[in-house]
Amino acid sequence: MTVQTKTFSIRTKSYCDVINITEQVSKTVKESSIENGIVNIHVAGSTGAISTVEYEPGLVKHDIEEFLERIIPYDQNYKHHNTWGDHNGAGHLRSFLLKTSITVPINNRRLLLGTWQQLIFIECDEKSRQRKIYITIIGE
Amino acid sequence: MTVQTKTFSIRTKSYCDVINITEQVSKTVKESSIENGIVNIHVAGSTGAISTVEYEPGLVKHDIEEFLERIIPYDQNYKHHNTWGDHNGAGHLRSFLLKTSITVPINNRRLLLGTWQQLIFIECDEKSRQRKIYITIIGE
Amino acid sequence: MTVQTKTFSIRTKSYCDVINITEQVSKTVKESSIENGIVNIHVAGSTGAISTVEYEPGLVKHDIEEFLERIIPYDQNYKHHNTWGDHNGAGHLRSFLLKTSITVPINNRRLLLGTWQQLIFIECDEKSRQRKIYITIIGE
Repeated sequence: MTVQTKTFSIRTKSYCDVINITEQVSKTVKESSIENGIVNIHVAGSTGAISTVEYEPGLVKHDIEEFLERIIPYDQNYKHHNTWGDHNGAGHLRSFLLKTSITVPINNRRLLLGTWQQLIFIECDEKSRQRKIYITIIGE
Repeated sequence: MTVQTKTFSIRTKSYCDVINITEQVSKTVKESSIENGIVNIHVAGSTGAISTVEYEPGLVKHDIEEFLERIIPYDQNYKHHNTWGDHNGAGHLRSFLLKTSITVPINNRRLLLGTWQQLIFIECDEKSRQRKIYITIIGE
Repeated sequence: MTVQTKTFSIRTKSYCDVINITEQVSKTVKESSIENGIVNIHVAGSTGAISTVEYEPGLVKHDIEEFLERIIPYDQNYKHHNTWGDHNGAGHLRSFLLKTSITVPINNRRLLLGTWQQLIFIECDEKSRQRKIYITIIGE
């Protein structure tokens, strides 16, 4: 039984950019000495989020953005804006809602995801950001 | 310290079917050799979801469905429908929002859930599906 | 490789009280013998929730409450109310949506959170409650 950790960085393009991080995580899992267990994928910060989705343009370029804009509109008078004079209240709420980590089982050094299920990072901040993703694998 | 895994299958009935999977998970936890740690419950796929709720008819037959339909309506013109010609865009967004796994602590081979808290699978796809649930127990 | 568990209690004040639990969790992680791994933070029950947010008054006293009230209004005719004659249907749905646990990586006995990212408990029940939080640390 052991724990192995790795980080990698991604550059997001803009507000609501949805980035496929499956390959980086899969590669790390494949190259680790842990065959079975779980992997936690996490972003440190309060304006990013991690989840899974079928990574196809309709969902990741339109539907997710339209859905998030509908339930947490970007341009609203959030009290958070008064605190810092910035404009990313929606981003904080989206990260709070979607959360900054996910935990997925692994079997034979393979992520137990569906064929049409990819790991994604969702940029909730207002603009392009450098993001560090933490991978923590636990198992034997 | 060790890791133990098990899978079981469920048959969902229809869109938004909410299935109580507490007993299968509890039984697996009880029969494992791990006394304390965590258990990850996961469905592989992009149109299912896992969470907890008080499993009583009001919530699981009405309120959850009404809530999900209100924030992610089934019958909307999702771009995802253009990609594949199917009609499960809402299901993908629901799974993206609710996520496909949950991790719960265990103590003395018992799930640390509240008395009125049950583990559930939520069918987000359009119709009846066979679903495979992965249980991964880690601890000692 | 080992597992260490600890619990602590908090007293919530009212509906939608958002409590910063970062210090209690950080202290437990710091005092454990586990240097690297993950920590699961969990509340047992079906009307509480755990997530992260920047803990500043605008978000935790206004924006979160306004957002949750908008997507899951307190005063609605939930079927759950007919089951028990109580009035916390919204609380159950909020807990179902936000979930009762989160898992965060730890490195050198330190939570890998962002500078502006705090662990929070969200009271989704109607009134002040005593809440027990479970911390489970796994690693080596």
